[in-house]
Amino acid sequence: MIKFLNSFEVPVGREDDFLVLWQAVNDVMVTRPGYVGHVLHRSLAPDARYRFVNYVTWESVAHHRAAHDDAFRALVSAPEWNSFVSNPALYEVVSENKR
Amino acid sequence: MIKFLNSFEVPVGREDDFLVLWQAVNDVMVTRPGYVGHVLHRSLAPDARYRFVNYVTWESVAHHRAAHDDAFRALVSAPEWNSFVSNPALYEVVSENKR
Repeated sequence: MIKFLNSFEVPVGREDDFLVLWQAVNDVMVTRPGYVGHVLHRSLAPDARYRFVNYVTWESVAHHRAAHDDAFRALVSAPEWNSFVSNPALYEVVSENKR
Repeated sequence: MIKFLNSFEVPVGREDDFLVLWQAVNDVMVTRPGYVGHVLHRSLAPDARYRFVNYVTWESVAHHRAAHDDAFRALVSAPEWNSFVSNPALYEVVSENKR
């Protein structure tokens, strides 16, 4: 399992616009092989740098890569996305603890 | 339950220094009331903006706030932390899906 994390800068008042775009991408990704699950977070503070953070689990790097095909790229290259700076990257878990 | 997310900028070659500092803080936090668990992530790509992301679950905002007392502040104000830019913020879950 690998983790995909994406932090989004979303101007105050643009939250609903962001969520519509995000949902359209997510609706596609959940259908892709190797998608395990996601958790989308909204900051409690309206002035947090990253208003939304998406935390996604994929079975493998190969599954994640395969999901980012031409159809995906067409979706995220919509000009509406230009309003929202993002920081996508893949991660491995290096320390875990649950009390 | 609330989520605390912190993304860290860690220069290449400074990973071990970061992990020593992070572990010292984490050793304290896991003892605090309301701490539920954490997952620390390292980016697969060495040139990712955020090399490490800590994802922590707390029982409530009040628990999280109470844990950030003078002892905690003394720990994170060590000058060694100046090398590592961080983006700490509290989040609520707004969308969740598991296939």
